Amino acid sequence: MNSYSDISSKRYALHEAGKLTAWAEYCLEVPGLGAIEGKQFVKDSLAATGCEISINSLLPGAGMPFYHKHQQNEEVYIFLKGQGEMQVDAETFQVQEGSMVRISPAGMRSWRNTGSESLIYLIIQVKENSLEQYSLTDGVVGEGPVIWSDN
Amino acid sequence: MNSYSDISSKRYALHEAGKLTAWAEYCLEVPGLGAIEGKQFVKDSLAATGCEISINSLLPGAGMPFYHKHQQNEEVYIFLKGQGEMQVDAETFQVQEGSMVRISPAGMRSWRNTGSESLIYLIIQVKENSLEQYSLTDGVVGEGPVIWSDN
Repeated sequence: MNSYSDISSKRYALHEAGKLTAWAEYCLEVPGLGAIEGKQFVKDSLAATGCEISINSLLPGAGMPFYHKHQQNEEVYIFLKGQGEMQVDAETFQVQEGSMVRISPAGMRSWRNTGSESLIYLIIQVKENSLEQYSLTDGVVGEGPVIWSDN
Repeated sequence: MNSYSDISSKRYALHEAGKLTAWAEYCLEVPGLGAIEGKQFVKDSLAATGCEISINSLLPGAGMPFYHKHQQNEEVYIFLKGQGEMQVDAETFQVQEGSMVRISPAGMRSWRNTGSESLIYLIIQVKENSLEQYSLTDGVVGEGPVIWSDN
């Protein structure tokens, strides 16, 4: 059995991305663009169907060399360590641990590390306007208490 | 101008959740269920339309007192600090910094903190099968170099 069929037979998938400070060791090969250091997409590892998440680590002094926008997808950036700056539509603001930024598809965006340690963050890509119900409304509580093996 | 119209006039929104170790100070009031400590939903603050994200901090010894599943939505749990255990459909596995777990709507899930510090994590809720194109395929690179005010 290969790993995909193993994943698909369960209603969950677990991906171990490792410690945040080790995310710098990932490298994404992009045909035509070369290697992007400190980035990994996890949609395939998670067999996710509603979001594409990437884990990211940007070295001090580094920044995105271009602006980009999206066609269909909203993005949420979640900063976990370090200090940086982000631009959206030529407006600039600071980001740090705990900063969360939602950007609409058409927003032109770029960002850079302005601190002395790695800037570590998640990027979550979802289809704009796709969520119909959420939070506690979509959840259904099961019957009975939770049983752990050592209970 | 209220804060919502201020958000909606831009193609981004910034929410400062604060340092991860301070997420324990949040408290979510749920009508009928009472207060859930260490949890905050950020969809409204971000004016997000494709995902609902919550930030979470669970004290040592604490765990979800019930199982739950979802109707429409896939969830991804991203663990950032601490040690815990998760159950999905009665299968149990350990989670720690860097563990990412995708759960299909029907998966019955619960989790607990098994460590000596707070278990800190994100939960991302998205509609199952909603993502049509993603990663680099949905992105469009803008023209020209990135200009920062100190360039």
